[in-house]
Amino acid sequence: MKTAKIQVVEPDARPAAAGEAVGLGGYKVFSRILDWITTDRMQLLNITDRINEIVRKSGVRDGLVHLQSLHTTSALILTEWQDALLCDARTFFDEVVDQNRYYRHNDPLYSDCERRNADSHMRGMLMGQTQCLQVRNAAILLGTWQSIIFAEFDGPRSRSVAVQVSGV
Amino acid sequence: MKTAKIQVVEPDARPAAAGEAVGLGGYKVFSRILDWITTDRMQLLNITDRINEIVRKSGVRDGLVHLQSLHTTSALILTEWQDALLCDARTFFDEVVDQNRYYRHNDPLYSDCERRNADSHMRGMLMGQTQCLQVRNAAILLGTWQSIIFAEFDGPRSRSVAVQVSGV
Amino acid sequence: MKTAKIQVVEPDARPAAAGEAVGLGGYKVFSRILDWITTDRMQLLNITDRINEIVRKSGVRDGLVHLQSLHTTSALILTEWQDALLCDARTFFDEVVDQNRYYRHNDPLYSDCERRNADSHMRGMLMGQTQCLQVRNAAILLGTWQSIIFAEFDGPRSRSVAVQVSGV
Repeated sequence: MKTAKIQVVEPDARPAAAGEAVGLGGYKVFSRILDWITTDRMQLLNITDRINEIVRKSGVRDGLVHLQSLHTTSALILTEWQDALLCDARTFFDEVVDQNRYYRHNDPLYSDCERRNADSHMRGMLMGQTQCLQVRNAAILLGTWQSIIFAEFDGPRSRSVAVQVSGV
Repeated sequence: MKTAKIQVVEPDARPAAAGEAVGLGGYKVFSRILDWITTDRMQLLNITDRINEIVRKSGVRDGLVHLQSLHTTSALILTEWQDALLCDARTFFDEVVDQNRYYRHNDPLYSDCERRNADSHMRGMLMGQTQCLQVRNAAILLGTWQSIIFAEFDGPRSRSVAVQVSGV
Repeated sequence: MKTAKIQVVEPDARPAAAGEAVGLGGYKVFSRILDWITTDRMQLLNITDRINEIVRKSGVRDGLVHLQSLHTTSALILTEWQDALLCDARTFFDEVVDQNRYYRHNDPLYSDCERRNADSHMRGMLMGQTQCLQVRNAAILLGTWQSIIFAEFDGPRSRSVAVQVSGV
């Protein structure tokens, strides 16, 4: 598992990155975009701490935090953050969707996509590009072994996850 | 990919179809039911524009839009809307859940279901019957290549998707 | 399918179990934790009625109900509650993730986990540990055949599902 070389990019100039809170009568919506540059074709990143930091900044004590990867060839999953298990997860992704079989999306006769990433699309579609979690006492509610993981299926690339915290 | 022959049905008489807004102190909840008649056993419909139209009508600027298919043999997914890729997705659904193996649900000894649609149930359960997405600036937040797709796994049938927009 | 021997545990002393409502200006957030003790390694529990009871108690008429299993080796799914189909679902889980292949998570050389439950982790990650559903007219919106099912993939164990109802 390579997970160390993550470059975090949060340009101040980007409108949503500044963190925008909208609300009336106690209810508020706080939005932010987080960016990463991934380094491998398939890569799992633990983004729990970054999300919790945004929840704390939002001022929301009870409500929901919604995460949405803005890319079809990626996913957001919940699982235990353990090297051995992450290795098993990568093997599972490799086997449940075979990279090397024939795909029309990879065939120049049918598609102008040159990345040959049909498998990445299938994996993103299967695992899901969003997560919605509860906020309780100004923190994300997570079980002891639950971490929020960004799954890159077509790196290396620049990736964005939209984070929205809403509630009171 | 046949996706053209979609018949859109939105009877005015249906209570929720009229669009019902409930709210206090700025926060509001806007609900609507969308109906389709599908034409194939497996069929993928791009419903992004229909959902965005409801978000615009809701008057919600920042919040969540929640979509729920009311049928266990269907799913709501996010992926790129490209003919070649949709063809690959259909092949993937066919392979990850085999239609023709033995299922108790298809066996008259164990089940009174005559549709022989156990595979459709497995696909709906695997891919998920709901999607929750962010609303920003009165539109659904979507990445460049993300479309909202209704996946029919047991058509042709009449299908309903409940849409709820909430926020400020 | 064994589904009968479910022991329901809701200790009054537990803070969140008492049901905590937080809200301003009509919008409210109501939280509760439900507990079960499962009896089999793989087990499917219909929790629809328990969740609807909480929605009724919450006083929320229109909004969202969010369910989160606090365990990585479990899932929350929507499907039809029919014995024959549940049997097919268990077979599907067994086949899409093979329990008996090699996993690093089960190998003492790489992992200190003694439960040999890598397959349970893969199943929980694949099927998802959360569900978010609409609340309409003070009840969960569900299609005729949709039931909310807690999927145990590593029992017997004590399990908790966090329930949050929010809206007006």
